[in-house]
Amino acid sequence: MDIDDLASRIRAGERRALARAITLVESGRADHRAQATALLEALKGHGREALRVGLSGTPGVGKSTFIEAFGLMLTGQGLRVAVLAVDPSSARSGGSILGDKTRMERLSRDPQAFIRPSPSQSQLGGVARRTREAAELCEAAGFDVVLIETVGVGQSETMVAEMSDLFLLLLAPAGGDELQGVKRGIMEMADILLVNKADGDLKTTAIRTCADYAGALRLLRKRPQDPEGFPKALTVSAIEQEGLARAWEEMQSLADWRRAQGHFAGRRAEQARHWFEAEVREGLLARLRREPVRGAMAALGAQVEAGAITPSAAADELLSEYLQLDRGAREEA
Amino acid sequence: MDIDDLASRIRAGERRALARAITLVESGRADHRAQATALLEALKGHGREALRVGLSGTPGVGKSTFIEAFGLMLTGQGLRVAVLAVDPSSARSGGSILGDKTRMERLSRDPQAFIRPSPSQSQLGGVARRTREAAELCEAAGFDVVLIETVGVGQSETMVAEMSDLFLLLLAPAGGDELQGVKRGIMEMADILLVNKADGDLKTTAIRTCADYAGALRLLRKRPQDPEGFPKALTVSAIEQEGLARAWEEMQSLADWRRAQGHFAGRRAEQARHWFEAEVREGLLARLRREPVRGAMAALGAQVEAGAITPSAAADELLSEYLQLDRGAREEA
Repeated sequence: MDIDDLASRIRAGERRALARAITLVESGRADHRAQATALLEALKGHGREALRVGLSGTPGVGKSTFIEAFGLMLTGQGLRVAVLAVDPSSARSGGSILGDKTRMERLSRDPQAFIRPSPSQSQLGGVARRTREAAELCEAAGFDVVLIETVGVGQSETMVAEMSDLFLLLLAPAGGDELQGVKRGIMEMADILLVNKADGDLKTTAIRTCADYAGALRLLRKRPQDPEGFPKALTVSAIEQEGLARAWEEMQSLADWRRAQGHFAGRRAEQARHWFEAEVREGLLARLRREPVRGAMAALGAQVEAGAITPSAAADELLSEYLQLDRGAREEA
Repeated sequence: MDIDDLASRIRAGERRALARAITLVESGRADHRAQATALLEALKGHGREALRVGLSGTPGVGKSTFIEAFGLMLTGQGLRVAVLAVDPSSARSGGSILGDKTRMERLSRDPQAFIRPSPSQSQLGGVARRTREAAELCEAAGFDVVLIETVGVGQSETMVAEMSDLFLLLLAPAGGDELQGVKRGIMEMADILLVNKADGDLKTTAIRTCADYAGALRLLRKRPQDPEGFPKALTVSAIEQEGLARAWEEMQSLADWRRAQGHFAGRRAEQARHWFEAEVREGLLARLRREPVRGAMAALGAQVEAGAITPSAAADELLSEYLQLDRGAREEA
């Protein structure tokens, strides 16, 4: 594969080149990985800076409908929009429930939009890395907005927040008691809470829910990356396309402030370091899944189960015999 | 240090030898670790089989009072009781809030009892390993019951359950709404729920709370390691020493059933494998905290932050240059 040629076609915004490059970063083959790394290096610093928007919400909250309506509004303004997904269930089942193009039929036919389902991988960490790299490819291909969606499961939300410039939480109208169902940790990650379904019978409930969330947000500790009034809660109706323009304005205003204050670039730098460290750890642990370590670990594990050797002694043996680590390397202060 | 001598003194039940051995397993020094591993190997399979009982509960639920009353009841029956602790906060602060002997003054003066506070470590995984090894030492020293306590924080509870034969959850009397505050995952780990403070004004509430929990337990999926009627909920009063004998009977009856069915030995075998694998992972990752890898990681991390290299390329460089891993080693299917 000619990496330089692929890189220039991505920079020219060719969708097929982008799709092919994403397939490359999603591949588990060692030669593909080397090419993917070279491609990302070649594209580094090119392309305009996209706004990477993370979006989470539990099933049934209307995520697909929101993304379709919000995406079409943006493409209607002449912006190019990419939609990616991190599906935590694909890490277990190997199948992808998110990012299915049939869920967003109109947006998927829009030439200004690019929708890619979640990569399926054996590990959530693998899904996250591939999605983060796909986001970089979309940015290099000149997309203005990269939406990265996930469902409401703690770990996947943290991962999406770690690859986004802004993090949105889509919520359903709810009674006061259910408010507590949103984990504090997730609330603290969010920049904007969007209470969806503010239409028809649910409109009043949505407005009240939004006020409740706004109250809850005021109780959180002020973060340095937030201007006055953020994080904030807004109502939207994806079905009636209400509140979407307002939400976009708020997102832009927040992003502009962060750019002016240096928080935008600072956050991207921190995220890059985070992913570098995560990749090193993951790369090191991957060694345990390859022969001959994998086989030795299974054999020693069976001896440990049988009580023939203690867990510590068995770990010492594996680390020193197969991973060239002396005992000293295992200890820290 | 003469490991064989230390081992035989532990087998003879010498408290000072036990205390010294626990200090050895808690040490971070490489030579100490090697000695600790040799000691555990020497003691493997010796001593009677203790009953290892995990105990968790949120602050204020009366854990210390319960352990003191329950421990004194057991020593009163001629049993020898060891109390260990896994303190998740010590992993952060370096200080230990749990296992303080002054909390259990009478029990700590009882010659049949042995109380050891939580080791303080930089990582919860380190605290857990050292406590698990201390439990093995107590077992080799002939203790009949090893109580391992922790506070109600998800990860530390899972770790304590992974080193216990039985897992108890100590709870406070509460209104119906608060019942939901106990995370489902914690409920699913518990073998016996003990609603404490079933005395004075709270007695009626405690009985009702216990019935509520019993109802909640019946909704959980049946586990193969449980006889009819388990997991179960009981009321106790640590202050009035009520219900403690009943709780101990239930614990023994559960342990007897599991021994007869092979679940007891099976669980210990599984736990040993779990800890072996955890130690291998931890040992591998510890390499990142040692020079020259640590320094190289910091330098590359700074380059990643500055945008001079992508996270993937930097991870490749560190893994191949400093950890002798080629790219292929990082990938899995």
